[in-house]
Amino acid sequence: MINEVGRELPEYIEGYGQVKPFQYALDNDVVIKRKNILNTYNKSSEGKYVNSIKEVLLKANIKDGMTISFHHHLRNGDKVLNHVLQEVANMGIKDIKVAASSIFPIHKPLVKLIEDGVVTQVMANYISGPVADAISSGKLKYPAIMHTHGGRARSIESGDLNIDIAFIGAPTCDTYGNINGVQGTSACGTLGYAVADAMYANIVVAVTDNLVEYPAEYVEISQEYVDYVTTLESIGDPSGIVSGTTQITKDPIGLKIACDTGKVIEAAGFLKNGLSFQTGAGGTSLAVAHFLKKMMHEKDIKGSFASGGITGYLVDMLNEGYFRTLVDVQCFDLDAINSYKENRNHQGMSASKYGNPHNKGAVVDQLDVMILGATEIDLDFNVNVTTGSDGRIMGGSGGHSDTAAGSKLAIVVTQLIKGRIPIVKDNVTTVTTPGRSIDVLVTERGIAVNPENKGLAEKLKDAGLNVVSIKELKEMAEKIAGKPEKIEQKDDIVAIVEYRDGTVIDLVKRV
Amino acid sequence: MINEVGRELPEYIEGYGQVKPFQYALDNDVVIKRKNILNTYNKSSEGKYVNSIKEVLLKANIKDGMTISFHHHLRNGDKVLNHVLQEVANMGIKDIKVAASSIFPIHKPLVKLIEDGVVTQVMANYISGPVADAISSGKLKYPAIMHTHGGRARSIESGDLNIDIAFIGAPTCDTYGNINGVQGTSACGTLGYAVADAMYANIVVAVTDNLVEYPAEYVEISQEYVDYVTTLESIGDPSGIVSGTTQITKDPIGLKIACDTGKVIEAAGFLKNGLSFQTGAGGTSLAVAHFLKKMMHEKDIKGSFASGGITGYLVDMLNEGYFRTLVDVQCFDLDAINSYKENRNHQGMSASKYGNPHNKGAVVDQLDVMILGATEIDLDFNVNVTTGSDGRIMGGSGGHSDTAAGSKLAIVVTQLIKGRIPIVKDNVTTVTTPGRSIDVLVTERGIAVNPENKGLAEKLKDAGLNVVSIKELKEMAEKIAGKPEKIEQKDDIVAIVEYRDGTVIDLVKRV
Repeated sequence: MINEVGRELPEYIEGYGQVKPFQYALDNDVVIKRKNILNTYNKSSEGKYVNSIKEVLLKANIKDGMTISFHHHLRNGDKVLNHVLQEVANMGIKDIKVAASSIFPIHKPLVKLIEDGVVTQVMANYISGPVADAISSGKLKYPAIMHTHGGRARSIESGDLNIDIAFIGAPTCDTYGNINGVQGTSACGTLGYAVADAMYANIVVAVTDNLVEYPAEYVEISQEYVDYVTTLESIGDPSGIVSGTTQITKDPIGLKIACDTGKVIEAAGFLKNGLSFQTGAGGTSLAVAHFLKKMMHEKDIKGSFASGGITGYLVDMLNEGYFRTLVDVQCFDLDAINSYKENRNHQGMSASKYGNPHNKGAVVDQLDVMILGATEIDLDFNVNVTTGSDGRIMGGSGGHSDTAAGSKLAIVVTQLIKGRIPIVKDNVTTVTTPGRSIDVLVTERGIAVNPENKGLAEKLKDAGLNVVSIKELKEMAEKIAGKPEKIEQKDDIVAIVEYRDGTVIDLVKRV
Repeated sequence: MINEVGRELPEYIEGYGQVKPFQYALDNDVVIKRKNILNTYNKSSEGKYVNSIKEVLLKANIKDGMTISFHHHLRNGDKVLNHVLQEVANMGIKDIKVAASSIFPIHKPLVKLIEDGVVTQVMANYISGPVADAISSGKLKYPAIMHTHGGRARSIESGDLNIDIAFIGAPTCDTYGNINGVQGTSACGTLGYAVADAMYANIVVAVTDNLVEYPAEYVEISQEYVDYVTTLESIGDPSGIVSGTTQITKDPIGLKIACDTGKVIEAAGFLKNGLSFQTGAGGTSLAVAHFLKKMMHEKDIKGSFASGGITGYLVDMLNEGYFRTLVDVQCFDLDAINSYKENRNHQGMSASKYGNPHNKGAVVDQLDVMILGATEIDLDFNVNVTTGSDGRIMGGSGGHSDTAAGSKLAIVVTQLIKGRIPIVKDNVTTVTTPGRSIDVLVTERGIAVNPENKGLAEKLKDAGLNVVSIKELKEMAEKIAGKPEKIEQKDDIVAIVEYRDGTVIDLVKRV
C-alpha cells in the first residue's frame, strides 16, 4: 500500500505489527484513548528505597522480552541507560526493547548489547551517534520505531507502547519517589519527556545521585507514580547534560536567512501583541529570535509565550518582557535550568501537553510561529530530519512534526546547499514531517511558500521579499552543486518512522 | 453478611450494586487499576470557549442518568454546583447523579432538585446542611454514597465512579483550559480535590469568573484535560470560600486536651527532627499545633512537613522554620492561599497523592502524627464523624479514615461530653473510621490507648499521663450525662459509607 506522502509500505512488519498508513486526516474529532493500568504495588513497610539497580531489576521481575524506558533530559551526559542495560546484560536477560525518548553518542555501549541480542528493538524520537549507525546497518533484530515527542506520549498513554519498567534519571529524588530536575549536581531542568513514562509504565524506578529526605521541596514527578528509588554515584556528566552557552550564528548567510525569516513573520501578519514563538537552539534558529526581538522592540510588541526546548536567549527575552511566559519541555542550558527553578513564569510541561495530538489540546496547537530545520526538503515541502543524504539515521523528528502540525506558521530555515549537497530534492530520503504542515522555506537564495497556504505568497511578495518556487530553489542548488546521486538502499527495513498519530509516514532501509 | 466492624450489610443495594464488606485487609499488595479512557474530543478551530453553561451542556450531550461532578474548594461560597444543576433542571433532564467532593449548606437548592427527580443520587466525602437533612429523611431515590477524600480519587481513577461531565470551578482559567486557584476574586488556593475529576471524566468543563489570555501563568489543572471553558459572573462568594482567621481555642478544657495531646506525641517518641504532622482547622486542633510548636521550640526540633487542609497557623510554622515544607490539598484561609501562591515550599497535592490507598504511596502513608475529631467513638475505637447521635448525616469522613490509616500515631481529641451527650458509646451510630487505625483518644478526663498499639499505653503511663481504659471513659461520661437513648432508625438505607478502598464500612438508615 502507499501512504499519502507516496511511500510504499507493507501491511505488516515483523516485530511491529499491522501498519497504519499515514494520511492527512481530518483530525477534528479525536478519539482519546488512555491505557487501562492494572499493576501490583508492594506497599511494604520497608519503603521504596532499594540498594542497587540490580536489586530493583530482581524486584521488578525483569525477564526476556520486556520493554524498558528512559528519558533523555541528561542528553549526552546520561549515565542511567548504559548502567541499567549493563546490569540487565549481566543477569543474562535477552530480547529487551529499549524505549528511550532519545539516544545520543554517549549510549555507544548499547551497540554491543544489540550485537549480543540483549537489546532487540529501540524506540526513540531522536537517535544519533554509534547506535544510529548500528541501526542503519541492520544490526537490530527488529526495526527501530521512531516517534515524535508528542507521538511518543500518545503511544504510551494509549497503550500502543507498553512499558514494563521505566527508569527515570532523577537529579533529585526523595526517599518516597518525589522527583525534580532542578536540584543536585546533575540538574537538567524540566523532566517533561519522562512524565508519560511515570504515569503509564507498570513499574517506575527513580534513579538518583541526590537522594533527599522526604518530602522533596520541588516536585515534578510525584510519589504516587513511583515504585522504587535507587541511587547511582552519578547519573550524569554535567558537561554533557547542557550544551555550553548557545550562541547566535556569526555566519553572514545564516544571518541573512534569519533576518529574512523575521520579515516573513512580519509580512505574514504575526508580528503583533500576543505572538507565540518557538525556535531551536542552533545558531541560525537563535538568530531568528534575535531579529524577532529587534522587531518586537521597535514596534513595542509583547508576546504571550515561547515554547519548546528553552535556551538562555529566550530566558532573557522573558526577563526583558518580550514574552509573558515560557512553556518548557526541556532546558538546553544552565540559564534555562536556573530560570525554570526560580521563575514561576517559566513553566514546565510534559511531552503530552507539548505535542500529543490525542489529548484535549497541546501547546503546539496554540503556537503562532515555529522555526524548523531540515536535512532535506522536497518539492511537496516534505521534510527529512531523520536520515542524512546517505540514508543513515542521524536524528529524528523530536518535536519537528508536532510543532509543524500545530503552529500557524511553520518556517523551515536552511542554507540551500550543505556540505556540497543541495537541500531541496525531488524526493527526500526519509519523510519525517509531511509537506502540508510546512508553510515556508527560507534560504539565502530565495523564499518558497507552500501553495497549500493560500494567499501567503502574495503577502510576502507585497512585502518585497524574494519569493520563488521551491522548484526554482532546487534548480539553483543543482546548478551549483550538481544533481545528487540516488543513494542505494537494501530492502530490509531498519526503522519505522511513525507520524505523531501512530500512522507510518516512512521506512528507513538498510544502507 | 457482617463486615469486620460488625455491621450487617445486604449483598446488593439498588442503585449501588454488589456490596463488598469492609475487612481489615493485609494491604501490602495493592492492585492498582486505572480506568481506560475512551472519549471523543472535538478539536474544532473555534477553540474551547463556550458562551454559557447551557451551551456546554448541549455540546456535552447531557442526558438523563448522567453523572456530573463538582469540587468543593469554593466551600460554602460555591455558586457553580447550584448554577449548573439549575440549568440541567431547566432543560428537563432527570435522574442525574451528583458526584461532588463535598456538599455544604449553600447547596440548599439541590433539595428541590432531589424532590423533583432531577437529581436521584449524591456522592460526596462530606455532606452538611439542608442536603444532608434531605438525604437523612429519605428524599433521594438511590442511597447517597459517602467516600473518603482518598477513596473518591481511587474510585474515579479505577472507574468505579464514572464521571460523564466534570465541572471545575476555576478561580482563574485561560481560553484553552489552564486552570489555577490562586488568582482572581474567587481565589481558593490549591485545587487538589478536582484533579482526579479533570484527569478521568469523559468531558471536563472549566467554569471561571476570571478568564485570562493564553497561557495562564500558574497552572494547577492543565489544558490537556479540559474540553470546554465557560464563564459565570461569579463562581464563588469570597466570604464563604475561606473561613475567617482560624483561632486557637480559649476554652480551658480544649486547652487541657491539646496540652495533653502534645505530651502524648512526646511520650510516644515522635517529638524529634523530621516530625510530620497534620491537624484540622478547629480550635482544639489548632491548639495542639500551638503546644507542639512550643515543645519543638524548646527542644530545637525541625519537622519535615505538615499536610492536609492548611491554615495560617501552619503557614506561620513553615515561615518560622518549624516545618521544611507544607503539602496542601486545600487552603482553609487567606494566609494559606497567599502562601501557596508565593512560597514554593508550600506545595499543592491532589486528593490521590493525599490519600488514595490504591496508588504507589500517598502522603498520609508518610505522616507521623494525625490529630482527629470525633462525634462518637466506641469501645473498639471505631469513630463516627458521619452522623450525629440522632442518626442524621452531618459530615463525613473527608480525610479522616485516610489519615487515620496512614499515620503512625492517630490521636482523637474530644471533650468527653458534648451537648450533654457522652462521646464514648458501646456502639457508634455510624462507623466512619475503623477502630484499628486509631491509636489514642485524648479527653479532658483521661487518655485511652487502643490495645492494638502494643506498648504505647506503657510509654504514656511512664510519662505520667493519665491513662485509663476507654470503658472507664464511657462510664465516667455516663455517670455525668446519663446513658444515651438508643436512636430509632427505619430499615431504608439512605447512605452507604464506603471505606477508602471501596468496601462498605457502614450504612446510614432513614431517621
